[in-house]
Amino acid sequence: MPTISIVYYSGGGHTAVFAEAVAEGAKSVSGTSVNLLRIDGKDIVEGRFKNDAFLATLNASDAIIFGSPTYMGGPSGQFKTFADATGGIWYQQQWKDKLAAGFTVSAGTSGDKLNTLEYFFILSQQHGMVWIGTGVLPYATGQINRYSFSSGAAGQANQEPVTEKPDAEDKATGAHLGRRVAEAAVRWAK
Amino acid sequence: MPTISIVYYSGGGHTAVFAEAVAEGAKSVSGTSVNLLRIDGKDIVEGRFKNDAFLATLNASDAIIFGSPTYMGGPSGQFKTFADATGGIWYQQQWKDKLAAGFTVSAGTSGDKLNTLEYFFILSQQHGMVWIGTGVLPYATGQINRYSFSSGAAGQANQEPVTEKPDAEDKATGAHLGRRVAEAAVRWAK
Amino acid sequence: MPTISIVYYSGGGHTAVFAEAVAEGAKSVSGTSVNLLRIDGKDIVEGRFKNDAFLATLNASDAIIFGSPTYMGGPSGQFKTFADATGGIWYQQQWKDKLAAGFTVSAGTSGDKLNTLEYFFILSQQHGMVWIGTGVLPYATGQINRYSFSSGAAGQANQEPVTEKPDAEDKATGAHLGRRVAEAAVRWAK
Amino acid sequence: MPTISIVYYSGGGHTAVFAEAVAEGAKSVSGTSVNLLRIDGKDIVEGRFKNDAFLATLNASDAIIFGSPTYMGGPSGQFKTFADATGGIWYQQQWKDKLAAGFTVSAGTSGDKLNTLEYFFILSQQHGMVWIGTGVLPYATGQINRYSFSSGAAGQANQEPVTEKPDAEDKATGAHLGRRVAEAAVRWAK
Repeated sequence: MPTISIVYYSGGGHTAVFAEAVAEGAKSVSGTSVNLLRIDGKDIVEGRFKNDAFLATLNASDAIIFGSPTYMGGPSGQFKTFADATGGIWYQQQWKDKLAAGFTVSAGTSGDKLNTLEYFFILSQQHGMVWIGTGVLPYATGQINRYSFSSGAAGQANQEPVTEKPDAEDKATGAHLGRRVAEAAVRWAK
Repeated sequence: MPTISIVYYSGGGHTAVFAEAVAEGAKSVSGTSVNLLRIDGKDIVEGRFKNDAFLATLNASDAIIFGSPTYMGGPSGQFKTFADATGGIWYQQQWKDKLAAGFTVSAGTSGDKLNTLEYFFILSQQHGMVWIGTGVLPYATGQINRYSFSSGAAGQANQEPVTEKPDAEDKATGAHLGRRVAEAAVRWAK
Repeated sequence: MPTISIVYYSGGGHTAVFAEAVAEGAKSVSGTSVNLLRIDGKDIVEGRFKNDAFLATLNASDAIIFGSPTYMGGPSGQFKTFADATGGIWYQQQWKDKLAAGFTVSAGTSGDKLNTLEYFFILSQQHGMVWIGTGVLPYATGQINRYSFSSGAAGQANQEPVTEKPDAEDKATGAHLGRRVAEAAVRWAK
Repeated sequence: MPTISIVYYSGGGHTAVFAEAVAEGAKSVSGTSVNLLRIDGKDIVEGRFKNDAFLATLNASDAIIFGSPTYMGGPSGQFKTFADATGGIWYQQQWKDKLAAGFTVSAGTSGDKLNTLEYFFILSQQHGMVWIGTGVLPYATGQINRYSFSSGAAGQANQEPVTEKPDAEDKATGAHLGRRVAEAAVRWAK
């Protein structure tokens, strides 16, 4: 039974809503176990993230989906301190051959979201992981993948209540990514 | 009197319309001279671009603005063959300290447009150029910079007639970039 | 029996040598079939690549490894015209769920090789493919992966004869990537 | 008299040595004032950077040079928390039209250093800044710019004492960048 973990940071809560949609999608694939891990600012002391149980859960996963708001053109500082804390895991290549994917939420319809997704990709490649994107054509309007990204899933939210944004289409895009990664994890399992 | 050259490829004509808007913006700054240079497929023989007069015009410019549709996640192949043809100019650093900027048009609202703008940036840096972005806040709707890019200007067009798309807001975004680069060229002129 | 195709452009022949090393690595995995497809400038007419048999071979592959020299900070124009010619395949998502990987060769030890590898990644994601990197720690000197890339394999060659560069270490890095992709193709096969 | 500020994070001290070389280069241009600002982990509380005097110094500068080690394929988490703390400055575009540049140090000769430099670029573009690269040809060996980057300056250091690495060539590359930015600041000053 493949385990899919979603590790994400959320400031105002919009990325958390998106992460829950990704988790729902992953859970919809039978025979999978899903963990939702939110990075907590309290675990960051003087700019260094430390939470051994958190990393142990990721080490025991078959697929890891990275999520963060796009802040100032990249993943949030909080997410990056988490990424830096995986240096020891990297050195031992403990995540090698696990599946990886990513998602991001920001205020602009497009903006520099791609740079955040590309960072998740580069992080995954340093870890020797195998990357899964959205695998769905972009559409200028409607349906899913409204913002036309391929490398990962994207949502849009500004200062609206989290009950409004990300909206239903964005959440469906997140659920699609979660389902796709879970299906790949079943196929990839030896 | 600074000379600004806009060098671009356009397949269906939408990027040409955007390029003209950029040129209008640049011309609106008094004391500038503007060249609009469209890359012609006929100048590409067996995958190599050759047009000496074209390159000579760029060599004589103070600022060069790169433009291309985003095809399959990057600048069009035709633009890239042009870029490769600047290898000799690069080796002599003939474009060093010229100003550079860029714009792209594609069907998706966002998609991988950022990757095309980043390529223009990398090309400019190999040439030792100084990069000017849009310098305007992104807006989720209305006004200019609707797709919330900062590194360069972006427009959206699919199969619509070129009289419809890029639309007035996109053209205003292009004109803004042209004006901004021209103003910088006046300031940067020694 | 998974089929791995290596599609690449080579100007001076150094990337061709690297591609052959990748092919050797892929062939070393039992039960695989390997195609080596070199992009020919003669198939590019007025900046558009056309070779239906070539694309049909890729359509029939389980994994596609992209290769190109890094010219002016990105994949060669010839490779990009090939990538643009896959637009129809993209629209039908015919490469969805195939494996993808990439390699590049250029004169600098580092330079902007990462940008070429990232372009291959973005191309693969538009096609809905699953990306495999090098999966090996970087080393500052010796062994393989000397230039410390993770997203794909990298070699170095300037104007030396192709019998000298890429050197044995670079070729071993290429063979490693080919082997890794072939092993993943066996695992991924349903 | 243009003011150039270098804002950087350094973990083990190697990036600090590189930053000092950049400062020396900037100071060598007559009529400039140079600030060296090191990001302190103590200013990061629960993943958020806060130091108003620090930001005020940057607001009063004509050019800002960003520096960070490359950790796990991107700028350090500590640098990113600093970048996120400039959101209010961004919203008011207080850094608009200032000059920007960047440098990074990591263990690999190449690795994913380009991704860190590209992040600095994207940050600068969100701020409406004007980007200055190295403006020097890459060399495979010797002289400066040994790792053949154009978008910014790069150094290499692993666990060696900071008196050994970054070495003299790397420090000369840093000094070159500082001088180039300072000269541009003099030219750009109205």
